[in-house]
Order: sequence, then C-alpha cells, then structure tokens
Amino acid sequence: MNRGKLLTVIFLVTAVPTAAVIAAVRSEPIQPIEPAKVANPALVELGKKLYFDPRLSKSGFISCNSCHNLSMGGTDNIKTSIGHNWQEGPINAPTVLNSSMNLAQFWDGRAADLKEQAGGPIANPGEMAFSHVLAVDVIQSIPGYTEEFKKAFGNETVDIDKMTLAIAAFEETLVTPNSRFDLWLKGDDKALTKVELEGYTLFRDSGCVACHNGPAAGGNSFQKMGLIEPYKSTSPSEGRSAVTGKDADRFNFKVPTLRNVELTYPYFHDGAANTLGEAVDIMGRLQLGRKFSDEENAKIVSFLKTLTGDQPSFLLPILPPSADNTPRPTPFEK
Amino acid sequence: MNRGKLLTVIFLVTAVPTAAVIAAVRSEPIQPIEPAKVANPALVELGKKLYFDPRLSKSGFISCNSCHNLSMGGTDNIKTSIGHNWQEGPINAPTVLNSSMNLAQFWDGRAADLKEQAGGPIANPGEMAFSHVLAVDVIQSIPGYTEEFKKAFGNETVDIDKMTLAIAAFEETLVTPNSRFDLWLKGDDKALTKVELEGYTLFRDSGCVACHNGPAAGGNSFQKMGLIEPYKSTSPSEGRSAVTGKDADRFNFKVPTLRNVELTYPYFHDGAANTLGEAVDIMGRLQLGRKFSDEENAKIVSFLKTLTGDQPSFLLPILPPSADNTPRPTPFEK
Repeated sequence: MNRGKLLTVIFLVTAVPTAAVIAAVRSEPIQPIEPAKVANPALVELGKKLYFDPRLSKSGFISCNSCHNLSMGGTDNIKTSIGHNWQEGPINAPTVLNSSMNLAQFWDGRAADLKEQAGGPIANPGEMAFSHVLAVDVIQSIPGYTEEFKKAFGNETVDIDKMTLAIAAFEETLVTPNSRFDLWLKGDDKALTKVELEGYTLFRDSGCVACHNGPAAGGNSFQKMGLIEPYKSTSPSEGRSAVTGKDADRFNFKVPTLRNVELTYPYFHDGAANTLGEAVDIMGRLQLGRKFSDEENAKIVSFLKTLTGDQPSFLLPILPPSADNTPRPTPFEK
Repeated sequence: MNRGKLLTVIFLVTAVPTAAVIAAVRSEPIQPIEPAKVANPALVELGKKLYFDPRLSKSGFISCNSCHNLSMGGTDNIKTSIGHNWQEGPINAPTVLNSSMNLAQFWDGRAADLKEQAGGPIANPGEMAFSHVLAVDVIQSIPGYTEEFKKAFGNETVDIDKMTLAIAAFEETLVTPNSRFDLWLKGDDKALTKVELEGYTLFRDSGCVACHNGPAAGGNSFQKMGLIEPYKSTSPSEGRSAVTGKDADRFNFKVPTLRNVELTYPYFHDGAANTLGEAVDIMGRLQLGRKFSDEENAKIVSFLKTLTGDQPSFLLPILPPSADNTPRPTPFEK
C-alpha cells in the first residue's frame, strides 16, 4: 500500500461515524439502487396518465402499461407481446423498471433514451398501430389533458416531444430500491440467508458479474447471446447488428437488468426460458462454459430472488374523459 | 295526516339539529350514493388483485380491468369490446362502477349478481377464452395467492366460487359517492349551477326518471329499447328475451346507470352513440316521443355531467409472481 492510499484509508476510518459505516456500501460489482428524485411532479403525473392511456393506440385498447405492466414487474409475462389486431410481437417485452439506467433502449439499443423509446410502440404497426400525429390529435382534444400540459410545461400545446418527455419522466421514477440484496450491500448482514449469500458468491465468482453489474445488474452493455456455445432460437432477431449494420454485432443484445428478475419471466430476448432455473442453466453453459449443478443453480436462483425491490406505489391514475370532438378508437377498422 | 304521522314529523323536526337538516336528502327520484362498507378487507384485497390479473385469461393479456377499466369509468370506451384473438364483442361493456346496485348483471340480466357475472368472461371463448378449471389451476399454483386465500377464507384452497366471490367483494367497493348532484341532493344548494339544475328539472319532468331512478339512476329495471319508435341497430342483440325466451322481452335491456355517464361513452348496448348529446336526443325521441331542442339537450347534458362521483382510489395492485409450475399463457395457440 503506498503512502497516499494509506492516508486515505486512515482518513476514512477516523472521519466516518459508526452509523455511516454500517450504511456504507460494500465494494461489490453490483451497487444499490437509490430512490428516484422528481424534479417536476406535474410532468411525472402527466406522464403517468399517458402511460396508462390506451387512447395512444389505434384500438383504444393498448397502453404502455399493457406490455410493461406495473402490476407485473413492468413486463407482460408473455413470451412475445400481443400487438394491434393480436399480432405476435417479434421479441420479449423488457421491463420498464429501472430502465432509466440502461445505456440505450430496446434489446438492440436502437433508441438512445426513454423519451425516444416512448415514441416507438405508439407508431409501430405491430404494436399500438397509431401515428404520432393522431396521438397528438387525441390528447390535444381532451381538456383534462391540456390543463395538465399547462401545469407541466407552462402552456397547453400538445406535441409528441412533450408527450414522450412526460412518459419518460414518469418512467424515470420507476426504480426499485430496498431489495434485500441492496440492504445487504448497505451493510445489513442479516438481509440475506446463508444460501442466498452463497448464491451471490457463486454468481460473482463464476463471472456472471462480467455482464450483470452496476446498480441495475445489467443494462449497461451489449453482449453476444451465445458466447461459448451458439444460442438456438426460433426468433429472427439478430440484435445490435440491425442498428449498426456490422456483422460483428450479430446476436449482440443489451444485457437485461436482473433487478426484479423473479417478476420478469419468461427470460431472454425470445422469452424462451420460462423459469429462473432454466435461464441460469443456459447462461452458465452458453456464456461461461460452465454447467452449474442443481445445487449451485438453486443457490444462484435464491440469490436472484433477493434482487426484487420496492415495486411502484401510486394511486391508480384516473384518465380525463374524451371530449365530443375527440377522435374515437377504431379497433376493428381494416 | 293522521296523528301518528304528525307526531313523527314533530319528533324529527325537534330532535334533528341544524347541521343534519342541511344534510337531509331532498325527495327526488334519484337518491345519493353512499360509500361502500367493507366487511372483509382481506377478501376485497384478494378480489382487487384477481380483477387486475390477466392470468385469468388464456392469453395472459386480458383481465377484468381490460374491458372494465377503472382508470376510465369502469368501461373500455370502445363501441364493443376486444376479446381473445382480437374478436369483436357483440355488445358494449357496461361500467362496473356502482354495478352492485343493478337488479341483475349483463345487459340482458342473465347473471343474478356480481359473483355469477365474474365467472362469465373468464370462460367465454370470445372474451378471456379460458376455463374455470384452468383459471383455478393457475391461481392455486401461485404461493402469493394461496396466502391471500388463507387470509380471506381461512384456508388456502382455491376454487372458482371463492375467486368470483372475491372479485365481487372488490366490485362492491366500486361505488362513486359525492358527485355534485349528490351534494345537491343532500342539501347543498350551491353544488349545481342554474343551467345544471334546469337540466335536471327537464330530465325529471320529461319522464327520464321513469327508468333512470334510484341511487344508480338506472340499473333497477329492464325496459324496451325503442318504446315509441323502434331502435335501429346493426347489433344482433335482442336483450332480455335471450334469457326468458319470451317474445315480449325482445329488445328489453337492463336500463344502464347514468352515474359517471360522462366517463362511460360510447352509449347504449351497441355503443352506437358517441356523445351524451346524441344519447339524449335518441332517448328523448325513441323512449319519450319528445324532440329536445338544442338548448334543452345541452341543459340535460350539463346535468348528466354532475353525476360523476369519486372515482376508485387505491394503490395499483402488485400481483404475486407465477411459480415455476404455474401453467403459462398461450396467447397464440390455435
């Protein structure tokens, strides 16, 4: 230890009081999630209503919450999602929880941030099948909404930028602190059982943390699905290469967060793994070249379940009614 | 007035203090809605989760709340509902709000009560397309649910009777007191504007209250749609006769509640009227043989909007996750 480091250690040890030492964060590749800070509550309230509003879809039936259901870990718990006219989606809906921590949005990272992402499904013919122009027309015609735009933005004009900004502002609040793993990270030795801690140690020391690290335990890099062994899937998705055009990016996907993973089944971009046990087994073999024993697998699964944090807690939003001149949904129009 | 009645009146006048006199109910054909009394909170909490749980459908995508959306007046605001595989429903989804006051459930009254109703859509191939046996299998497999069944019923066994009883118990809490009209009924003269009160007087004195009366302003009788003039509809629904088999019941439908009618568009069993103005015009002509002037129509509409009461207010329910052995949804299975 050189002299500078030694001095720093001494300074920390002497300067930090006991309570803070207990609350100190353990030095681990996964860090705790902190509660969201809300800068503009009116913007978040508006975004929450828009997030729950199926009038952003052609059918009047599909909202953001349909596939990123906040009652179910921010997912739909279906292999691939159901879109307009019951179309089968090409990919598993990723959780919206803690998604503000992702380096980019969608499995292939084609949206830079939550605001850009929010505009995608509205206009996707296979999802909400609407258009930005029509969505703006609907929202602009609803007096209860224009009042909220005034509160959030200072004026009543509705446009898609403001709408997606509001949805993103709401989504930024959807973080899940206080998981048992975070309590342990913050120094509470009793927060994890012996088996859970053994599971974490195995998870860390086997190399899972190479990709699943940071506060979200993932979401911060693109990695190849099928590193040691190729991943066999019926899904046509080739991941990141669709964005970069580079052959080297084929089957590179954004590493999903493991936060609340107990709630976000089924797993992988194709939703092919129904249980955490399956997912751990496949990841071990394909990404690490390691076959976990049943006991090891169970230990890792028990650790993963400690990553479930506080779920979103708010009153069910009540949406402002359409006006007489609000364009009506056309769910069965060909 | 006989002596007994006279004594009662004197007793009331002398015994009731001023504040209570102000809170007295005006003698009108519509009565105020009272807040719900909850006998078994654990049962209501369980019912709330089941109401929001799409795992009661074959697809894992449709819950009770999909078509009776508590963010939107307990309806889907679509002409006719979207069912499994995007099937077009035969009828407009009636509001669940205040539905405990209905003399029977569904437009044709084929279910005696909310408990019986709750089982219908789950097993209807055009709606949730599941079966009671499969729905019970799913719920019984989920530890978070069996714990709640134990709290609500004293034991963990799941069956369809308990499930629908819980959903009905939750629905019984979905009453909407404190509308401005109710405040006026309870003696607050300032709760309505002059125009709104004129609208109510017109509504009452034109005969609308013959069917729209009681606390729910409807829901308590079956009446013929198209009494003076026949109602022209593309809907195949013939209403009550499908239940009774009697020709005299053709086109008899349960009178819908007018509570929260501002939120429950579009109107009628076929959802053919998009606006309250249209609905009032058609009702006046077909049921009363009266053509309301534009001014009269607007007054009645302004009264109808005073029937919007307190909307359901509760935290978004967080659903317990499926277990490894929980049967998975099969949205795209033929």
